[in-house]
Amino acid sequence: MNVASILAAKGSDVVTVAPDQSLAAIVSMLADKKIGAIVVVESGGPVCGIISERDVVRQIATSGAGALDQPVSVCMTRKVISCTAASSVDEVMGLMTRGKFRHIPVIEGGRLAGIVSIGDVVKRKIEHAEREAEELKQYIAG
Amino acid sequence: MNVASILAAKGSDVVTVAPDQSLAAIVSMLADKKIGAIVVVESGGPVCGIISERDVVRQIATSGAGALDQPVSVCMTRKVISCTAASSVDEVMGLMTRGKFRHIPVIEGGRLAGIVSIGDVVKRKIEHAEREAEELKQYIAG
Repeated sequence: MNVASILAAKGSDVVTVAPDQSLAAIVSMLADKKIGAIVVVESGGPVCGIISERDVVRQIATSGAGALDQPVSVCMTRKVISCTAASSVDEVMGLMTRGKFRHIPVIEGGRLAGIVSIGDVVKRKIEHAEREAEELKQYIAG
Repeated sequence: MNVASILAAKGSDVVTVAPDQSLAAIVSMLADKKIGAIVVVESGGPVCGIISERDVVRQIATSGAGALDQPVSVCMTRKVISCTAASSVDEVMGLMTRGKFRHIPVIEGGRLAGIVSIGDVVKRKIEHAEREAEELKQYIAG
């Protein structure tokens, strides 16, 4: 059970922004796309950060409503932990728990190949457990 | 493996607010307490809602910076799904996945007895798997 099996179900689309976008734009994108985090990339360059609903809320707590006019770069997480499509779901769960984050970009050959949320991970675990239970039932039924 | 085992580790403290508090106050509380959601209660009354970082971000997307002056009641989730201390961790994982939420209040005898996040659930699953692996290792070692 690996990250590739999650991406097979949800696809490899990743919403990205440039580091100079405003937090107001981020708020709109998070709501429009119904997502919890956005990957930050320099134009044509590699991943330079990730920004989550949490980062935005904390920046508003620090700077007030004026935070919405600030650029993403003021509060994005710069040290991005990533995984690959071959990473196991358990490994990703461990990274999220130890690092206290909820979204992890998937990088393949230096390129962004998807993003996995803690919700995706839990959903995959449940599906896996349900399939195992079903297989066991069929095995017992003969 | 049930919700009680999560509360035994994290405690039963729950941050609450009244429905007329401003979203600006919520933003400060979320940041100060380092939490992702707050339970909304009428004074001395039962739970009447829950408000998360996501709800705040979506309200700002809708109303702009002026949302921070609006009361919690404009965007809180009113239909709160709860669990009890006896609920299994797998059951709570299922509720969160199907309902697409990340925080669930624990209600015991009509009273708020804790709150569990998807991060708590995943952490508990990992601890459980690690303990089982350790027990198996000791059993094999004789």
